[in-house]
Amino acid sequence: MKALVYGGPGKKDWKEVPDPRIQHPTDVIVKMEATTICGTDLHILKGDTPEVAEGRILGHEGIGVITQVGSGITQLNVGDRVILACVSSCGVCANCRKGLYSHCLNPEGKAGIGWIFGYMIDGTQAEYVRVPFAENSVYKVPEGVADDEGILLSDILPTGFEIGVQYGHVRPGDVVAVVGAGPVGLSAVMTAGLHGPSRVIAIDLDDARLARAKDFGATDTVNSGDPDWREQVLALTDGAGVDVAIEAVGTPRTFTMTVDLVRPGGHVANIGVHGKPAELALNELWIRNIDISMGLVNTNTLGMLLKLVAQHRLPADKFVTHRFTFDQILDAYDVFGNAAQHDALKVLIHR
Amino acid sequence: MKALVYGGPGKKDWKEVPDPRIQHPTDVIVKMEATTICGTDLHILKGDTPEVAEGRILGHEGIGVITQVGSGITQLNVGDRVILACVSSCGVCANCRKGLYSHCLNPEGKAGIGWIFGYMIDGTQAEYVRVPFAENSVYKVPEGVADDEGILLSDILPTGFEIGVQYGHVRPGDVVAVVGAGPVGLSAVMTAGLHGPSRVIAIDLDDARLARAKDFGATDTVNSGDPDWREQVLALTDGAGVDVAIEAVGTPRTFTMTVDLVRPGGHVANIGVHGKPAELALNELWIRNIDISMGLVNTNTLGMLLKLVAQHRLPADKFVTHRFTFDQILDAYDVFGNAAQHDALKVLIHR
Amino acid sequence: MKALVYGGPGKKDWKEVPDPRIQHPTDVIVKMEATTICGTDLHILKGDTPEVAEGRILGHEGIGVITQVGSGITQLNVGDRVILACVSSCGVCANCRKGLYSHCLNPEGKAGIGWIFGYMIDGTQAEYVRVPFAENSVYKVPEGVADDEGILLSDILPTGFEIGVQYGHVRPGDVVAVVGAGPVGLSAVMTAGLHGPSRVIAIDLDDARLARAKDFGATDTVNSGDPDWREQVLALTDGAGVDVAIEAVGTPRTFTMTVDLVRPGGHVANIGVHGKPAELALNELWIRNIDISMGLVNTNTLGMLLKLVAQHRLPADKFVTHRFTFDQILDAYDVFGNAAQHDALKVLIHR
Amino acid sequence: MKALVYGGPGKKDWKEVPDPRIQHPTDVIVKMEATTICGTDLHILKGDTPEVAEGRILGHEGIGVITQVGSGITQLNVGDRVILACVSSCGVCANCRKGLYSHCLNPEGKAGIGWIFGYMIDGTQAEYVRVPFAENSVYKVPEGVADDEGILLSDILPTGFEIGVQYGHVRPGDVVAVVGAGPVGLSAVMTAGLHGPSRVIAIDLDDARLARAKDFGATDTVNSGDPDWREQVLALTDGAGVDVAIEAVGTPRTFTMTVDLVRPGGHVANIGVHGKPAELALNELWIRNIDISMGLVNTNTLGMLLKLVAQHRLPADKFVTHRFTFDQILDAYDVFGNAAQHDALKVLIHR
Repeated sequence: MKALVYGGPGKKDWKEVPDPRIQHPTDVIVKMEATTICGTDLHILKGDTPEVAEGRILGHEGIGVITQVGSGITQLNVGDRVILACVSSCGVCANCRKGLYSHCLNPEGKAGIGWIFGYMIDGTQAEYVRVPFAENSVYKVPEGVADDEGILLSDILPTGFEIGVQYGHVRPGDVVAVVGAGPVGLSAVMTAGLHGPSRVIAIDLDDARLARAKDFGATDTVNSGDPDWREQVLALTDGAGVDVAIEAVGTPRTFTMTVDLVRPGGHVANIGVHGKPAELALNELWIRNIDISMGLVNTNTLGMLLKLVAQHRLPADKFVTHRFTFDQILDAYDVFGNAAQHDALKVLIHR
Repeated sequence: MKALVYGGPGKKDWKEVPDPRIQHPTDVIVKMEATTICGTDLHILKGDTPEVAEGRILGHEGIGVITQVGSGITQLNVGDRVILACVSSCGVCANCRKGLYSHCLNPEGKAGIGWIFGYMIDGTQAEYVRVPFAENSVYKVPEGVADDEGILLSDILPTGFEIGVQYGHVRPGDVVAVVGAGPVGLSAVMTAGLHGPSRVIAIDLDDARLARAKDFGATDTVNSGDPDWREQVLALTDGAGVDVAIEAVGTPRTFTMTVDLVRPGGHVANIGVHGKPAELALNELWIRNIDISMGLVNTNTLGMLLKLVAQHRLPADKFVTHRFTFDQILDAYDVFGNAAQHDALKVLIHR
Repeated sequence: MKALVYGGPGKKDWKEVPDPRIQHPTDVIVKMEATTICGTDLHILKGDTPEVAEGRILGHEGIGVITQVGSGITQLNVGDRVILACVSSCGVCANCRKGLYSHCLNPEGKAGIGWIFGYMIDGTQAEYVRVPFAENSVYKVPEGVADDEGILLSDILPTGFEIGVQYGHVRPGDVVAVVGAGPVGLSAVMTAGLHGPSRVIAIDLDDARLARAKDFGATDTVNSGDPDWREQVLALTDGAGVDVAIEAVGTPRTFTMTVDLVRPGGHVANIGVHGKPAELALNELWIRNIDISMGLVNTNTLGMLLKLVAQHRLPADKFVTHRFTFDQILDAYDVFGNAAQHDALKVLIHR
Repeated sequence: MKALVYGGPGKKDWKEVPDPRIQHPTDVIVKMEATTICGTDLHILKGDTPEVAEGRILGHEGIGVITQVGSGITQLNVGDRVILACVSSCGVCANCRKGLYSHCLNPEGKAGIGWIFGYMIDGTQAEYVRVPFAENSVYKVPEGVADDEGILLSDILPTGFEIGVQYGHVRPGDVVAVVGAGPVGLSAVMTAGLHGPSRVIAIDLDDARLARAKDFGATDTVNSGDPDWREQVLALTDGAGVDVAIEAVGTPRTFTMTVDLVRPGGHVANIGVHGKPAELALNELWIRNIDISMGLVNTNTLGMLLKLVAQHRLPADKFVTHRFTFDQILDAYDVFGNAAQHDALKVLIHR
C-alpha cells in the first residue's frame, strides 16, 4: 500500500510500504476512505517530537471500512464503515473505566497516553491502517454521514467539546469566550451551543477567521489586535468577565489573555497544545474562585456527537474547505501548512 | 470598648475605641466571646496590603452574642449566640444566589469581595463588632459547642473543606496529598475524611507538624525536606500520582510541588494565599487532563460543618493550642507570630 | 384598589379591596402592570384546596413597578420594574441556602412551602401587591423585555426548565419526551433546547397543541390517542426508550405512560400537579436504573432565563395567545378555563 | 466437576456436571475458591423466575483463580486470582461506555441485562465457572484480601454503595435512613460512611439485626415495630425528615415507609428487589422536590471498594457469619434460608 511516511525533521514522502497486519487479537485492519491533517502532524514534521521514529506513518484521523478483524473481536465485522478515534483505548483499564481514554494504561509504545496513531504506531494517512483495541476505538458510521462530516469526529469535534465545552462547564445562560478561531477553537464554538450559552464570543487576530466563526455559531467576535479588545469582550458581559474562557491557540500570551477574561466563579478551559510554560498570576488569581482545566481528548463523546451529526444538528461539514485525493496528499500538506494564505480550515484527503 | 487597632505597618494596639453602631437595617451588633488570629492579619501588619486604612480594627473570625439588630432583621434576635462568617454576603445578589458568597456583589468597601472584616471594615478582634448582612453572615450556635470549637468555623474549617476538599473533588477511594500542615492544611486533612479517601498524605518540612497531622486524620506523612520526598508520595499511590493534590502554603515552589504530584485525570486545589506568580508547565501539563482550582472561602458549608462539630464528628477543638484573654491579645500575636517556636496552631482570645 | 377575590368554591369577583400595606421590613409594594392565570387558580376556584380562605386575592404570576419598600430593603428601589417570582423565599434559611426556595423555612402562612401568593397570602391578580422577602423574590427586568415575555418568568418557564429539564438531567444528544403539550409542557419543550437534545418529542391527544409544540421547539410529535403511540415514540429512539421522559399533565395514567417511555439509565421528571396517587410498577422498574423526580419550582433559574429572554434567545412571547385589561379579567378566566375551545395557551391581563 | 444445579421449583442438587469450556474469545475459566448465596438464589429455587431453565447452575458471586483464557484476552493471565462481578459486561457498548454495566447491550441470553450468572448462563456455585466478557467482568485481587472479604465485592457491597449511597446522593452532613438491616441494607450502612453523613439510622423489625447494624456503622437504630417508629426517626433530624432514605427490603409497605421519611429536597434510593407494584402518593409528593432512584448494581465501583477493603478501611469481613465447604453447600442453603433462626448474614462456601 501507499502511505505518508515521516523521514526525519522536514522530510515526508507518499510511498509504497508493506500492508499492515493484525498483531493482537483486539486489532482490526481498516481500508481508509479518507483522512486529514492536524496541526500536530506539522509539529512532528518540524522535529518537535524527537520520540517519533523515522519511517513512521503519520496521521491520527480517519474514516474507512474494516477489512480484517482479530480473533478477539466480537462486536465488529468486516465491511463495517467506521470512524477511527484519534485515541486508542482498551476500555477496561482503571482509567478507561472512568472514561479517561486519553490515559489508557494499556497502550502500545508509551505508558498512559492513548494517542499513539502517527506517533508511537503507524497512523491513518495511509491506504490501510491497523487499529489496536478496535472495539473501544472505532465507531460505526450511521447511514447518511459523509466522509467530510465523519472525519471531524476522529479528533477535532470531540476535542472542542470535551476539553473546551465540557471541561469548561458551559451552562445555560453562560457567556463563553473562545480565544483562537482555528479548527479546534471553531469546534468549541460550534459545540458550545449544546449547553445553551447566552453568548459565544470568538476572539482572533484574523478577521477572515472571525467572519467564519460567526457561521460556526459565534454570537459575537472581537479582534484581539484591537488595543481595547479586552474591554470589548467585557462589554459583552455584565462587566465582571465571561463565565467560561477557552484557550485554543497554545502560547503563553494567549493563555494569559484567556485567564484574564474569566469572572469570579468562572472556568478556564485550555485546549491549546503548548510548547512552553506560562506564568500563572496566583497573586491575583488565588482569590477569584476559578478553575483551569486542560487535557487530551477522551473521545468518549464521539458516539453522541456522531448521532447529532447524523441528524444534521451539528453542521460538521463546514470544516472541510479543501479536498484532495490520496496521491495529492503532499499538496494537501502545502495547503494546510499555509492555511491563512489559502483560507483553509480542514483538508479532506480521500481515496 | 477596646479593640486591636492597626496603626500602619508594624504597629498595632489594644486600645479604647468607640462602640460600633448599627449603620444599615441588615446589620447586627455582636458582643464578642472569642476571636482568633489568622495569617492574613500578620500580612496586614507587615504592610503587605496598603489598601488597609490606619485605624482599622483587625480580625475576621469570631463567636459572640447579638446585642442589637437592625430594623430589617427578621430571623435573628438579641441574645442569639452566633458564629461570624469571615465573609460578609447579602445572600441575594447574582453571585450569592449561586453560593459564591466570596464574591458578593454588595459589599462595603470593595466591589465583589465578600471578605471585608478587618480589611475594608472594622473586624472581630474587639469587644463588639458590627456585622453587615447579618442574616446571611452569622450562624446560630447549637447547644454544646464551645468557643474553641466554634471559632474554627468562621474561616479555617470551611476554607480547608470548600477550597481544598470540595474544589479538589475528593471522592471515595482517592489518594489525597496536602502540601503544608499549617492550620488551613490541617483543616483540609481533617475534612477530607468526609469524602472517604483511601489515603490522606500530609507533606511538610516540619516533623512536629507532620506528627500533628496524623492526629488530625492524615494516614501518611512525608517530609518534603527529604530528597526523595516525591518518590515517597508516589509510592503511596499506584505510581501515577495522587488523585487530589492540595496546596496549603502559598509559594511558587510549593505550588509547583503540588501540581507535580497529581495523576492524569486528577485535581489540584490551591488554598494558599500567594504573593507572587508561579510558573505553570503547560508544555507538560496540557495533555494530563487535570484541573487547578483556587479561591476564597464561601462559608456556604459553615452550617453543615457546624452540625458535624456539634455532633462531635469533626474534632474542631484540636486546633486551639493556646488561650489568652482579650487584654492579653498582644501576647497572643507574639505566640501566633512565632508559631513554630511555640508549637502553636490556633490561639483562642476570649473575654 | 381592585382585585380578583375568591369567594368560596365557584365564586370569584373583581372588586374593590383595601390597598396592601408594608407589613414586614423585607416587604415591597408593587403596582402591577400585568398578571396571568394558572391552572392552579382554577383548582382553587373549584374548591380543591379548602385551606384557601374566602376573601383571598388569587394569582401568583406578575410584573410591575415597585411603589414602596420596607425599611430593611437595601437593594431595591421605588420605580424598579420587576418580575414577581411565584415562590416567596427568604434567601437565607437552610433550604434557601441550598437553592431550595420552594421550601423556604420562613414563609407566611404555611411552614416550608414557598408558594404562598394567591394561596396563603393575597396574590397578584390585583392592582397592587405586597411582596414578602422581596429582595430574594423579585427580579429587575432588563430593558426591552415586554410584559408578555416577562410574565412567563414568574412561574411557567422556570417550572418547565427546573422541574422538567434540570431535574430530568437532559444532556447533549438525549432524546426527550414530554407528555402533555399545555403551557408547562411547552415550557419544558422550549427550554430543553438549552441542553442540546437530539430530539424533543411532544406527546398529546390534541393535534392543535402538537402543531403548536413544533413551533415551540419539538422535533417530533406523537398523538397519544393513536393505539401505537408508544411504538411511535420508541421508533424515534434506538428502541430502548427515551433518555428523559417528562410528565406535564398530572394524572395517574399519564404518569404511568411517562414512566413506561424511559430507557434503562434514564430519567423521569414529573412536573404535573397530581390529585391522586399513582401506581409504580416497582416489580418491573427496580432493575431499570432510572430515577423519578418531582417538585415545586424554585425559581432559582429565573434570572438566567430572564437574561436569555432579554436576548431573544428564548421566544417566551409565544405563550401569550389572548390579551385582556384588568377589568376584563372575568373574560380572561372564561377563555383560560375553556382553553381548548379558544385555542388559548396563556392569557395576559394588563392595566 | 461438581456444581449446585437447579432442578425446577424447590429442587436443587450438588452434583457432577461437565466442566465449563471457553465459548468465546473474551471468556476465561475460573477455578472457584469460594462462593456465597444471595436472596435471589432462593427466589429462583421457589420458582419465582420461570425463565430460569432446569439444569442451570446457580450463583452469581465468587472468587477464584483463572485456569484458561480465551484467544481475545490480553490483560488477564492464567493464575490470576480474581473476584467475579455479578454483572457480566462487554465494556464497550453504548451503555457500558456510560458505566451502565447493568444494562450491557451484548449479554448472553437476555437483551440489555448484565446479570446473567446463575440466571441465563451457568453460575458460580460450582468448582469451575466460565466468565464471559472477562476483561471487564473480573477484578484482580490485591495481596492480603481474604476470601471472606473479597466475596462481598461480587455484589453486595457495590449494590449497597452504588444503588443506595451513590444513587441516594449522600453528602457530608446528611442524615441517612436505611430501611431493612439485612445484608444489602447493612452494605449501605457500611458504605454510607464514605460520604460523611452526620447520622446513619438503621430501621428494622429485628433487634438482633439492629444491634449488628451498630457494629456496621449505624449511629442510631429504630425498631419499626414501635408504633412511633417514624417519630423516632424524625426526632433524629431537624423534624423535616431525613436527607436520604434507602429501601433495602423490597415490599410495597417498606417502600412507602421509606418515601415517607424523606425531607423536601431529599432523595429516596430503592435497593430492594420488588415482586409487586407499590402506590406512589403523587398527590402529596409532587410538591416535595424529591427523587426516587432504583436499579441493578453496575459494579463500576468494585475496583474502588476493593482498594478500600485491601487497606482495611471497609471491614467487609463482618458480613460472613457462617462457613461451609463446597460439599456442605446444601447445609449452607439451609442456614441462609433460615437466616433469622441462625442469626446468619452471609455464608461463605469454599473449597
